[in-house]
Amino acid sequence: MGGEFAAIERLRRALPGPPAGEVWIGDDAAVLGPGQGRLLVTTDLSVAGVHADLALIGLDDLGWRALAAAVSDVAAMGGRPDGAVVAVAGPPSTDLDLLYDGIAGAAQSHGCPVVGGDLSSAGDLVVAVTVAGHVDGGPGPVLRSGARPGDAVLVTGPLGAGAAGLRLLRAAASGTGGAALGTGTGVGSGEDLQAVMAHRRPWARLAEGETARRAGATAMIDVSDGLLADVGHVADASGVGYRLEDVPVAPGATMDEALGGGEDYELVLSTPDPVRLTAAFVDAGLRAPVLIGWCTADTAERTRAGKPTMALGWEHPWGEGSVRT
Amino acid sequence: MGGEFAAIERLRRALPGPPAGEVWIGDDAAVLGPGQGRLLVTTDLSVAGVHADLALIGLDDLGWRALAAAVSDVAAMGGRPDGAVVAVAGPPSTDLDLLYDGIAGAAQSHGCPVVGGDLSSAGDLVVAVTVAGHVDGGPGPVLRSGARPGDAVLVTGPLGAGAAGLRLLRAAASGTGGAALGTGTGVGSGEDLQAVMAHRRPWARLAEGETARRAGATAMIDVSDGLLADVGHVADASGVGYRLEDVPVAPGATMDEALGGGEDYELVLSTPDPVRLTAAFVDAGLRAPVLIGWCTADTAERTRAGKPTMALGWEHPWGEGSVRT
Repeated sequence: MGGEFAAIERLRRALPGPPAGEVWIGDDAAVLGPGQGRLLVTTDLSVAGVHADLALIGLDDLGWRALAAAVSDVAAMGGRPDGAVVAVAGPPSTDLDLLYDGIAGAAQSHGCPVVGGDLSSAGDLVVAVTVAGHVDGGPGPVLRSGARPGDAVLVTGPLGAGAAGLRLLRAAASGTGGAALGTGTGVGSGEDLQAVMAHRRPWARLAEGETARRAGATAMIDVSDGLLADVGHVADASGVGYRLEDVPVAPGATMDEALGGGEDYELVLSTPDPVRLTAAFVDAGLRAPVLIGWCTADTAERTRAGKPTMALGWEHPWGEGSVRT
Repeated sequence: MGGEFAAIERLRRALPGPPAGEVWIGDDAAVLGPGQGRLLVTTDLSVAGVHADLALIGLDDLGWRALAAAVSDVAAMGGRPDGAVVAVAGPPSTDLDLLYDGIAGAAQSHGCPVVGGDLSSAGDLVVAVTVAGHVDGGPGPVLRSGARPGDAVLVTGPLGAGAAGLRLLRAAASGTGGAALGTGTGVGSGEDLQAVMAHRRPWARLAEGETARRAGATAMIDVSDGLLADVGHVADASGVGYRLEDVPVAPGATMDEALGGGEDYELVLSTPDPVRLTAAFVDAGLRAPVLIGWCTADTAERTRAGKPTMALGWEHPWGEGSVRT
């Protein structure tokens, strides 16, 4: 029955569309209401066994990741979160205290209070986090659809750490890399620990998203499906092609992980003025974004280092129960 | 590990509380932001086998009920819905078109567009609907905590139809009442059909909630857990007792179903001036609410027709997978 993207596209077509000035299905978050201070709403599912392997990470990690992933969608619009509601369905044996501990930790760290929720029994653990936020002064929310030919493409940091962390955790679980994780008898390298933490405790780039919006970003998305998949979403929505060159790879990660691994939650954005945008990041005390390529007028052009990009990003396998990363 | 209410109370205690003027966990919807036009956010889970029995109703009914239940929480604050996001986790075999059909129907009927969503595979079908709304002029959102001794208690309509409809559907499924449902060879009574539709396609009382807010309701809640349970929530939050007299019973329903059955989505509210409130309903072209009793100063007083009320309402059995109604 097709992948997640196809199913969401089908839902979009089945439902009435938004009035002028609003954005509904198809961006990182929906935009409601006219003018400044517009309401952002986004929802994100985390299913044990699909989005997180509880043999590798804790319930508190799952909770943290669920909240951070939803907040990241607000970051990708250049917005600020106002609050989250958390719906939890799961087996009665679920350690709710541990799950809520991770949710509460991420909520506090991201300045996004948990303001409500619902709870039910179910066979699998399913956590649905919805975040409401707003855009505070300056330009409106940054959509996926605003990139123009000639715009530079930048990323807010090196990629692939989340996928590398998952690989290290799997190796440790299969007994081939336990020392790399700080578990058991040995302690792994700093890089390995960093990657594992990137998988267990990802961060939404709120300050980066807001700074990019104020400094003239034309399109923005968070790296949740994988860099090439997410740049592809922007290209599709904007009607542009792209030519990527060097991509920064996180310590301990491979280039494949940087291009295809998801859930890094760095932001990818386009702008006609990368110098102004970079200066704004530095002025705000943020790490300078990295220029990774350019938008082009030929919508069929999708290359990295001169070669056509394969669809290295993945989508959630609606139809399979496998862990997706 | 206690019921749903205990788990939510534990979550509330584990998390930081709201600043003055905001309401987080514990009411029908959370209230964010100061002043008029405050943002309402609420989330509601519908799990196949827990909240809906797919042997008795269709996936479209489940979708309709999921959206209506979340919108009802906005109605119970006296607010208007701005949009819903819908997260669906379920088996790959799920007929998404049928599910979305019911969701879209309820969205259109309630004036609450679906503006976003997420989708994942999972063992059970879990639908989490989050609605964002606002309060539009006049007094602020009506909380559960505002009832005062001497206030009248009113309900916006007769109760028990949802529970009666479920009973009729079960009887039909077991072969003892098929004719009552308009299925198979016979057609049941109009009352029976009405009850079945109340279960399959409930409505949120948005106009009633807004009218009550503007006409001086001091506390309000929707009947989702059952009248006595929900009046109990108001009494707990407000620090009052109650003395209920006659309760209007929906056609085809029993008094037990009216007192204990949930998911009717009528609103129960308190006001010091039931005449003014009733006049406002009539002026707005709405069915006059029914006075069912009074709030009292003795928090231990909880009676109906002079007798102490048992806890006839139920709560979701976190720990059991049974259909709850």
